[in-house]
Amino acid sequence: MNLMKSLIPAAALVVLPQMGLAQEAAEGEAALHTQYIFTTLLFLMAGFLVFFMAAGFAMLEGGLVRSKNVAMQMIKNIALFSIAAIMYWLVGFNTMYPGDFNGFFALGGPTVLDAVGVAPADAALDYASIGSDFFFQLVFVAATASIVSGAVAERIKLWPFLVFVIVLTGILYPISGSWKWGGGWLDAMGFSDFAGSTVVHSVGGWAALAGCLILGPRIGKYKDGKVHPMPGSNLALATLGTFILWLGWFGFNGGSQLAMGTVGDVSDVSRIFANTNMAAASGAIAALIMTQVLYKKPDLTMVLNGALAGLVSITAEPLAPTLFGALWIGAVGGIIVVFAVPMLDKFNIDDVVGAIPVHLFAGIWGTIAVIFYGEANLITQLTGIVAYGVFTFVGALILWTILKATVGIRVSEEDEINGLDMAELGMEAYPEFSKG
Amino acid sequence: MNLMKSLIPAAALVVLPQMGLAQEAAEGEAALHTQYIFTTLLFLMAGFLVFFMAAGFAMLEGGLVRSKNVAMQMIKNIALFSIAAIMYWLVGFNTMYPGDFNGFFALGGPTVLDAVGVAPADAALDYASIGSDFFFQLVFVAATASIVSGAVAERIKLWPFLVFVIVLTGILYPISGSWKWGGGWLDAMGFSDFAGSTVVHSVGGWAALAGCLILGPRIGKYKDGKVHPMPGSNLALATLGTFILWLGWFGFNGGSQLAMGTVGDVSDVSRIFANTNMAAASGAIAALIMTQVLYKKPDLTMVLNGALAGLVSITAEPLAPTLFGALWIGAVGGIIVVFAVPMLDKFNIDDVVGAIPVHLFAGIWGTIAVIFYGEANLITQLTGIVAYGVFTFVGALILWTILKATVGIRVSEEDEINGLDMAELGMEAYPEFSKG
Amino acid sequence: MNLMKSLIPAAALVVLPQMGLAQEAAEGEAALHTQYIFTTLLFLMAGFLVFFMAAGFAMLEGGLVRSKNVAMQMIKNIALFSIAAIMYWLVGFNTMYPGDFNGFFALGGPTVLDAVGVAPADAALDYASIGSDFFFQLVFVAATASIVSGAVAERIKLWPFLVFVIVLTGILYPISGSWKWGGGWLDAMGFSDFAGSTVVHSVGGWAALAGCLILGPRIGKYKDGKVHPMPGSNLALATLGTFILWLGWFGFNGGSQLAMGTVGDVSDVSRIFANTNMAAASGAIAALIMTQVLYKKPDLTMVLNGALAGLVSITAEPLAPTLFGALWIGAVGGIIVVFAVPMLDKFNIDDVVGAIPVHLFAGIWGTIAVIFYGEANLITQLTGIVAYGVFTFVGALILWTILKATVGIRVSEEDEINGLDMAELGMEAYPEFSKG
Repeated sequence: MNLMKSLIPAAALVVLPQMGLAQEAAEGEAALHTQYIFTTLLFLMAGFLVFFMAAGFAMLEGGLVRSKNVAMQMIKNIALFSIAAIMYWLVGFNTMYPGDFNGFFALGGPTVLDAVGVAPADAALDYASIGSDFFFQLVFVAATASIVSGAVAERIKLWPFLVFVIVLTGILYPISGSWKWGGGWLDAMGFSDFAGSTVVHSVGGWAALAGCLILGPRIGKYKDGKVHPMPGSNLALATLGTFILWLGWFGFNGGSQLAMGTVGDVSDVSRIFANTNMAAASGAIAALIMTQVLYKKPDLTMVLNGALAGLVSITAEPLAPTLFGALWIGAVGGIIVVFAVPMLDKFNIDDVVGAIPVHLFAGIWGTIAVIFYGEANLITQLTGIVAYGVFTFVGALILWTILKATVGIRVSEEDEINGLDMAELGMEAYPEFSKG
Repeated sequence: MNLMKSLIPAAALVVLPQMGLAQEAAEGEAALHTQYIFTTLLFLMAGFLVFFMAAGFAMLEGGLVRSKNVAMQMIKNIALFSIAAIMYWLVGFNTMYPGDFNGFFALGGPTVLDAVGVAPADAALDYASIGSDFFFQLVFVAATASIVSGAVAERIKLWPFLVFVIVLTGILYPISGSWKWGGGWLDAMGFSDFAGSTVVHSVGGWAALAGCLILGPRIGKYKDGKVHPMPGSNLALATLGTFILWLGWFGFNGGSQLAMGTVGDVSDVSRIFANTNMAAASGAIAALIMTQVLYKKPDLTMVLNGALAGLVSITAEPLAPTLFGALWIGAVGGIIVVFAVPMLDKFNIDDVVGAIPVHLFAGIWGTIAVIFYGEANLITQLTGIVAYGVFTFVGALILWTILKATVGIRVSEEDEINGLDMAELGMEAYPEFSKG
Repeated sequence: MNLMKSLIPAAALVVLPQMGLAQEAAEGEAALHTQYIFTTLLFLMAGFLVFFMAAGFAMLEGGLVRSKNVAMQMIKNIALFSIAAIMYWLVGFNTMYPGDFNGFFALGGPTVLDAVGVAPADAALDYASIGSDFFFQLVFVAATASIVSGAVAERIKLWPFLVFVIVLTGILYPISGSWKWGGGWLDAMGFSDFAGSTVVHSVGGWAALAGCLILGPRIGKYKDGKVHPMPGSNLALATLGTFILWLGWFGFNGGSQLAMGTVGDVSDVSRIFANTNMAAASGAIAALIMTQVLYKKPDLTMVLNGALAGLVSITAEPLAPTLFGALWIGAVGGIIVVFAVPMLDKFNIDDVVGAIPVHLFAGIWGTIAVIFYGEANLITQLTGIVAYGVFTFVGALILWTILKATVGIRVSEEDEINGLDMAELGMEAYPEFSKG
């Protein structure tokens, strides 16, 4: 608008500036509408991409468990997404994004959408429609629950797991989420987590770790001090799942810009897409090289988890780094996975799909890595990491323990050996194919 | 624009208002362009999401048939989509959306797109580009044909099925579709079907029902008064297909807003996304709980179909309901499926994938449910349901009967037992895996 | 803006035109911002669709190889995408789209993105953000590498293949790509290739052909003058891959409009969507009919490749043709595949997935077909086809030969028979399923 002033002759300055103001107001209104549409569209587009991550998790996990537990893994993934959708409406969204609260805790009620055909005067013109925001945030919480589902696979009972999901998605995640994204105490302190390396991924990872500890390892996994590998039944499916997650991550990180209506914002979303892709690529290549060097053979599962770890690593700050920054941050994530998987085995922690290395360890790494490019200091980042860790891990531990002590969380030994599909569902995922 | 008037001093009122008019006209033009781009973009985005439902149907059906019929199910799904694309160009689109017609019937010619680099003066500025509209509508008609393909699987011949698809996508669907969406007699009467619970889903369901009746059940399905389950060969694939369909439904329902260029419209698209997701979630959970209660074991296939039934149920009115409305409408859809599947078996109607419960029964339910939140009355809704039912069911019945009497629609008993893949295609979908 | 002039009274013409200019400048600025956002959004959306083609290629190839080589095909596809992402950043993008160069060759350095929150004055307002453009072009180069991966499957060593990918994506593709899309000598000559029938697909095809010639056929494929079919292990997966590729192609061709900010541009993107879909459909149907006529049985693999050949055929000019034009251009592509697959077998060229017929032959056809609807003459098109062919084929041939002579490119006979998965990776894709 500065251009205008220099072009208007002095003679017109009595009348025209006021018209200019009116004009500017009208134009400003129109521009605001366009910005609102763009940002709402960003949430819708990013939202459906992140939604699809539910399929990605299901395929990844379904490919990495043994065939006798695949149908159970499918039902768990579709049910956990559905529960997350209902709980986040019922209580989660308004717990996490409260209008006013004390910064630590605020229990919210059910989400209410904008009215049908909402008038501009009633819409959040400087942001986006409630429906799009709610949808976008909802698919995030489902991702958290999916992380848990993979780690505790092949031995957990269906219903106790779903009860855990109810509490995780309705209470634990929204409360801790409000600390940062709801404008709570960690946000006030300057804790930085752009798209959720900590808020989403490490929270899922802590809940998964608590679950694995309380559940114990699968029968036969650790015997006589040795680790007995239990290879996934369908690596094509696991690869498909990884590609779907990678796709969804463009929405996960790109949508977290929370705005697309200006030149600067849409360019930032573009930076985020490019950096997100780079971190995944370098995570995969790092794991490929590391497994070749360490084991003399590349390991497909590690490469898949390496790509995912790269993605988790860049999630805390996908905007500020250069492409080279994204490359090395992602690569460190991939390397972490290669070392962390056998480390967990040493502690007899049986994480079926590698969810803890990918989402917890790389999530912590990504949150720390913000200090290199973003505006954050190490102490604050560590404070956030510890706060989320203590709250989620202790909360999950208590919850798993209560479930174990009451309804029980683990299937019988016989059911585990026969497979959860026949035992709990009475069906098989691949009924016609002979098992070797 | 009212703001402007109050700010302009009286002294300027002789000259400025006219300039204001000119200015407003120019601005109005620019705003109209932006709206046109947004709505066209909505159709493109929703269109590719709904396109992907073709893959969803293929995977769902390929996962629910036995392995000896999977390749056939694949070729049928890719061929039916291709036929729908060609027929809808050749005759369907201009039959369904005619410029002027009597409200009941209008045979259209091939679709002609906007000119390359169309000038604004030649474009439908208050709507969207023809190409985007055509693409969006085309992927809908393909969905209708996919519904039939699943129900009549594992015993129908390829070519007669494809002839049926030609007539369904070129004639039956476009004519009946014009009654509502082309501005025909049901639209004039006030019949309400936002995104096609009836126009798309129940039409597919009626055609499928007619097909199942004329074809008869698969060999061995009903013997000695008992139902012999024939489990799907790949439930991971069926789950993937369900997630893809769920994803595509955001385009299916969201795109049916038919506009995205204003604050109100894009907010409505957001409401639709949130409601669509909720109905799917509640449909899945309802089926999960119902199968646990009724059969003491959750049934994965029922949960998948429950989610789909929830989606079909909300399709007639995804905008008006609150999130709680979407929840209970979807849940009823999920419950309908759990009861309808065994009911069809009682009548020896062999619907391989559960397409009739999901698309026909939940489609009817969804069309009725409009009366609770939308602007529609029960009589009009029932009139529409019956009109679509009679026209499609009778039309399909006649067509199936003619095909049966002339070229035959069912493979030989031997071919059915050996599987359609070897018999009709000379190939297997999984040639290396031993069958149990 | 012409409208304004006619409405403004003469009395105001001393003062207002200058204000008009100022106003127009401000409005023009705002309109430019909106256009920039739309085009950037086009690249992001098209970019994630084309990204997903990486999954499509992986599933198609994983479905068409034998089960003992599936894990290898997965690791190759995820690794090649990752390498392409890194190489295109390191050197490719700025080699292909140099600021100034002599039209034949220009070696570029690493890509630098727009600054965070870039100011409009520093952004390419008449185009799009660098990050979105880089991301969009990057996913194209990965497609080229995926084409090679399918053709040389089931006998190539992992690491030499990846070295080939490094050179292909960092050097060969970007240099030849600059000739057309970087504004080089072929562009100056009037060579026309809208979205890359030649620049992307035939380049991948030539590299694949060179690889197949140097590698030789799989053991047992051609014996005693006969062709021994080696059926793909999972046709459901191959079908999924085809649908994903079809989906991605909307981004591939639609995004190549390179602009979405005007009525004309977004309408052109719509034309491209409609034409792209039509060509795929007609390619599939043509292959379906041809295989029925020639072999008396429809062939699913041919139908899948027919759809892909239709897509490749329309890629050189997806905008100018009418829908009928897209139909017959795509159909010819489908027919080419049906004849080319057995023809390659006659020459003992063992292309495992049919990549050469689909991407090279249909790519050449599509580049020629531009003369029927687009603005191009046959001589120029043939010049481009030959130039890309000679450069890529010779370059690839030299590279494959060097690799063969140094590290070797083919696994041992024993490893090939046992399968690359166990030999090179020490794992199986489907470890639990007995092989027939």
